[in-house]
Amino acid sequence: MRRAFEELKGHLAQVYDLGRAARLLSWDQQTMMPSGGAAARAEALATLGRLAHERFTSNEVGELLDRLRPYEESLPSDSDEASLIRVVRRDWTKARKVPAELRADIIRAASTGQQAWLQARAASDFPAFLPYLERNVELKRRYVECFEPAGEAYDVLLDDYEEGTTTAEVRAVFARLKEGLLPLIAAVGERADAVDGAVLRGPFPPDRQREVVLGIIRRFGFEDSAWRLDVAPHPFATSFSPGDIRVTTRYGENDLGSVFAAMHECGHGLYEHGVDRALERTPLCSGVSLGLHESQSRLWENLVGRSRPFWRRFFPELRTAFPEALGGVDEDAFYRSVNRVEPSLIRVEADETTYSLHVILRFELEQELVNGTIDLRDLPEAWNAKTKEYLGIDVPDDARGVLQDIHWAGGTLGYFPTYSLGSVMSVQIWEAAKRSIPDLEEQFEAGEFAALREWLREHLHRHGRKFTPKETLARVAGGPIDPEPYLAYLRAKAGEIYGL
Amino acid sequence: MRRAFEELKGHLAQVYDLGRAARLLSWDQQTMMPSGGAAARAEALATLGRLAHERFTSNEVGELLDRLRPYEESLPSDSDEASLIRVVRRDWTKARKVPAELRADIIRAASTGQQAWLQARAASDFPAFLPYLERNVELKRRYVECFEPAGEAYDVLLDDYEEGTTTAEVRAVFARLKEGLLPLIAAVGERADAVDGAVLRGPFPPDRQREVVLGIIRRFGFEDSAWRLDVAPHPFATSFSPGDIRVTTRYGENDLGSVFAAMHECGHGLYEHGVDRALERTPLCSGVSLGLHESQSRLWENLVGRSRPFWRRFFPELRTAFPEALGGVDEDAFYRSVNRVEPSLIRVEADETTYSLHVILRFELEQELVNGTIDLRDLPEAWNAKTKEYLGIDVPDDARGVLQDIHWAGGTLGYFPTYSLGSVMSVQIWEAAKRSIPDLEEQFEAGEFAALREWLREHLHRHGRKFTPKETLARVAGGPIDPEPYLAYLRAKAGEIYGL
Repeated sequence: MRRAFEELKGHLAQVYDLGRAARLLSWDQQTMMPSGGAAARAEALATLGRLAHERFTSNEVGELLDRLRPYEESLPSDSDEASLIRVVRRDWTKARKVPAELRADIIRAASTGQQAWLQARAASDFPAFLPYLERNVELKRRYVECFEPAGEAYDVLLDDYEEGTTTAEVRAVFARLKEGLLPLIAAVGERADAVDGAVLRGPFPPDRQREVVLGIIRRFGFEDSAWRLDVAPHPFATSFSPGDIRVTTRYGENDLGSVFAAMHECGHGLYEHGVDRALERTPLCSGVSLGLHESQSRLWENLVGRSRPFWRRFFPELRTAFPEALGGVDEDAFYRSVNRVEPSLIRVEADETTYSLHVILRFELEQELVNGTIDLRDLPEAWNAKTKEYLGIDVPDDARGVLQDIHWAGGTLGYFPTYSLGSVMSVQIWEAAKRSIPDLEEQFEAGEFAALREWLREHLHRHGRKFTPKETLARVAGGPIDPEPYLAYLRAKAGEIYGL
Repeated sequence: MRRAFEELKGHLAQVYDLGRAARLLSWDQQTMMPSGGAAARAEALATLGRLAHERFTSNEVGELLDRLRPYEESLPSDSDEASLIRVVRRDWTKARKVPAELRADIIRAASTGQQAWLQARAASDFPAFLPYLERNVELKRRYVECFEPAGEAYDVLLDDYEEGTTTAEVRAVFARLKEGLLPLIAAVGERADAVDGAVLRGPFPPDRQREVVLGIIRRFGFEDSAWRLDVAPHPFATSFSPGDIRVTTRYGENDLGSVFAAMHECGHGLYEHGVDRALERTPLCSGVSLGLHESQSRLWENLVGRSRPFWRRFFPELRTAFPEALGGVDEDAFYRSVNRVEPSLIRVEADETTYSLHVILRFELEQELVNGTIDLRDLPEAWNAKTKEYLGIDVPDDARGVLQDIHWAGGTLGYFPTYSLGSVMSVQIWEAAKRSIPDLEEQFEAGEFAALREWLREHLHRHGRKFTPKETLARVAGGPIDPEPYLAYLRAKAGEIYGL
């Protein structure tokens, strides 16, 4: 039995290696690759993806899983071995339901859709993008049909990113968020002049930004022996093993977005870095869901990186690094400015408080796409109406509206909600950490983050994918998802800054 | 028939993708990877190598090759299609002769041998390395036994790097080199003080070196849209497609080795970049042999990059970049110093003229290793004796003697000769180019290299692996390998510099 298990692990290790090789190809594409390499890179990525999928969904894996059922049942369910068999059985069963041809069609449509989207967005031309969107949505509906959802069609899509969470559950969380956020944003809007948004104008020379960024994330846990920091137009984090973490950021001459992007990506990196090394080269060796991954990036970016104790420690250094830009700015003005709340058009530039409304808008529209309750030609109009309703602003063109995100162009539906679920969970996890480490904020003032990092590793990171996302959240935060701590956190922060 | 051909190409394209992905993993390992990624990287490389080998040597490929025999015979033999079938049949037949288990043993022994070598070299401890060397040599002998060589055992090893060239042919070329070089080096030795070796002492700030290097190789053909220049401790070039070429160099504060290393690697890069795009994603899409590859790197490094016309153009720029180091140096002194001939211990630091003697020494010892005519314990002694005989110098320790190269530690035997074959062929190709482009050297003085590059592309690069190395050399140089032009070139250059 042990031999069958080792055989399974050997097989899965190859799949893992192919997957991590693909991640390196993708990292290189976004950080290093000259443009002339694009066509060959797309082919290589397609080949690695196809081989990994073929090997994972093979009959051989199914037979091993069958043979291993008694072994699995003989083990404690929280053992690495039982968890591996359980998770692989779930993944394998799910992956087998999608015909190879449909999977290939989805990948192809995603690729051509993204090309078309780039041009359509540049020209703000939604009709040019429409046929590609139609194709993506049609394929996603066929994908949904491969499964037998207990509830709504959208559940199937959500499950790919936040396993086990239903549309109804997300709807309930988002209803509370809407209910809490709309009046908060309205109240802030009436006192908008309480924060001077103009204190951060630069210049911020990129080489000095890099030094500042490294100075901060080294304190979070970035080490030269296991991490790299590079530049990418759209910052991201990835890992090729727990010992090889790559984070990226981007440097603008006139803003400090690089610092927050780097803290965010470092949060993702710490999660991947903290997975138990015993899980290496297995499918358990990664964060458990997009939502929980995002909880870590948001925690380090916002709960840590936009807090007063944090800047009490780092603002003096920041001012020394950028005397031209920050010589006349004090810590309080800086803190207020990086926590300014202001409805805006672009999701990726939104502040902590308004961000979720961007996500809720997309979540609502995505359900309509999947259920076919909206004519796709009417999508810009629906988008603009919701933007007006939730954020109070007019969308001047589709480039800054319905065409702003790449997700739908690549056929990615069901992903958006995880951004806000992550924010919500980040505060639950934060509260739990604070209960365990009462002097957390004093530690930040001293530039110490090891206690927080190790607590997160112990209660969350090390588990990888051993447990379901819900089980994992319960382990780290002590209960199911709950939007109230998040709302309370936002209310308290905005209340203090805006004097509500 | 056409369908079987497309099927073969599709299959080979996947093998190509796996191979190029592995190249990226290796490039990243040498230029970017944090040390913590090493273990996972070794596993990933092993998996990609195994999968590529399995897919290439599959029965499916053999059956397609059989079915394609009439198609191949119906095509002109220099067509892309016939060439592909012919080369793949040769590669496949050869690859099938080696049992998977022996191949795995060789790879494992190479990996552990290299680790042991690193330590043994650091401690200059040959006895510590001896068991690993014995294992590598034993496995290589078993490898040789998989084939039925027409001539000597060493032919089998040579064929892996310089297909179709026999040990006897190399021996004949090297005999002429020895005959020509030994008296030349002796004559130079008597006039050693004709060149001041101390003019290049630096300081040469690395950032300015990088600018100088880019200024030069951009003129050779490096373009930002298809190339990258990075730093590696052991400079190398690689490519992921003809549109994605990576060259590396290293910067020393007190020497200009970076410039020559970069020109060398750029020569390799231009070869890969110049392969006909119609051959992409096939096994024909690369340089045809290590020797011909080296002919290109040596041509750009030495025939171009150590020539008077070249430095007439670039020395003024160099002096402007490094006023502290070169303010008091004139073009003639600089030219002489970068062409100094002086026997030395370390192959990779050797000058153009003495370099081949390092290679000949290794070639002679390698045959003894393979034939079992030397007790491996006596290898250091044999090494030191030949160094004294050919270069006139005493080897102070094994670190600077028999342990200096990584090749044998990795089980690589048969590779060394290609370095000198490349040098020999580089001058044959150079002479042919000069016959076609009479004003080549005037063009260099004007900083123009496009005519040379395009001539090389037309007559050599574009063919990739379509023809055998010997056929390829005949196409570009007009005949078989011939050491006389190389000897004449070295004699003329040293004669002028040393007043012989």
